Amino acid sequence: MWISKTEYLTFNTKKEKELVRITDMVDDFVRRCGLYDGLVLVSAMHITAGVIVNDWESGLHQDIMEWLEDVAPVRSDYRHHRTGETNADAHLKNLTVGYQVVIPVTKGELDFGPWQQIFYAEFDGRRPKKVLMKALGTGSEA
Amino acid sequence: MWISKTEYLTFNTKKEKELVRITDMVDDFVRRCGLYDGLVLVSAMHITAGVIVNDWESGLHQDIMEWLEDVAPVRSDYRHHRTGETNADAHLKNLTVGYQVVIPVTKGELDFGPWQQIFYAEFDGRRPKKVLMKALGTGSEA
Amino acid sequence: MWISKTEYLTFNTKKEKELVRITDMVDDFVRRCGLYDGLVLVSAMHITAGVIVNDWESGLHQDIMEWLEDVAPVRSDYRHHRTGETNADAHLKNLTVGYQVVIPVTKGELDFGPWQQIFYAEFDGRRPKKVLMKALGTGSEA
Repeated sequence: MWISKTEYLTFNTKKEKELVRITDMVDDFVRRCGLYDGLVLVSAMHITAGVIVNDWESGLHQDIMEWLEDVAPVRSDYRHHRTGETNADAHLKNLTVGYQVVIPVTKGELDFGPWQQIFYAEFDGRRPKKVLMKALGTGSEA
Repeated sequence: MWISKTEYLTFNTKKEKELVRITDMVDDFVRRCGLYDGLVLVSAMHITAGVIVNDWESGLHQDIMEWLEDVAPVRSDYRHHRTGETNADAHLKNLTVGYQVVIPVTKGELDFGPWQQIFYAEFDGRRPKKVLMKALGTGSEA
Repeated sequence: MWISKTEYLTFNTKKEKELVRITDMVDDFVRRCGLYDGLVLVSAMHITAGVIVNDWESGLHQDIMEWLEDVAPVRSDYRHHRTGETNADAHLKNLTVGYQVVIPVTKGELDFGPWQQIFYAEFDGRRPKKVLMKALGTGSEA
């Protein structure tokens, strides 16, 4: 039995820029929808946020955010800001790390290496923003 | 009924570097192939172009192209140029923003947030270049 | 007939940082599992390595590795190193180029442009590390 199922997560971070661990939310979704073997797309529905897979280590998370500030800095003079926006840097950070990952699922489990964890990467937060999860593959009852 | 269908787009931009909005082309493809629920891979078939999802705002587009010039600049001294090529920067820009996206489709529609638009990102244009679209999921008649 | 099949590759590079061409390994997997039309996820199972699609040209490969050293440099003062690790730069390089690609397969062949090749990008090697391949789509006997 092949299945295709979708759910949405909503985040409203307290900080403007923040990494939120969502591995367990994706894992819960996989169990709820009964995916046994296939893929789960985890994709931000906003263009000022990202989704990454990396290490669950707070020092590294600070390194990542500081590095992104070097690569795609906050600046006042982006042309995008002539529209009244102030978040062009968040768009560039989104382009740097990407806004989606495809998670493999095997025998009903996230098929991950020992250190892989999924994070929602907020670059322009303090308001509700959504992430889509879509599972595609064979169901547990297949 | 599960379907798997493929089409190709061809771009021949007037400028060497250019962002081309392709949301409607992907949407048309989804309707033509009858995908009701699933995923569409949108993937450049060249290694000097990208595919991104971001905002449809001309100021931001200039910001993105100038930022990419900072991150992955045109330079004469890339080793790749010893082969006669002059476009190593375009390869690096492709690696920075990525060359493919996976678009979720739900109830026959692109399942997008309010600001998400798909763009073909040409970094070495003025010649015909292709983008593949492949739909995988349940068809409308399922 | 729809199929979903998974295999793993293991790499143990001699150099700490290295690009390894894996196009043929992915192609072999597609033939072995009998995928006729669909997608193959090729995804590193480590957070200090990447998977990219680009040109098979040694000069460009040197350019890519030097460019990554500019964008995400080796440094001693990353916070991550307080844990005893020394590879924070490898995490940042992984975030820059991405750790997975989705390869389209049409009529049993990798549906690639003329210059597209798949590479495993090792940023912290000299130990065994794995890459997952998962095929999803219609089988050859469909």
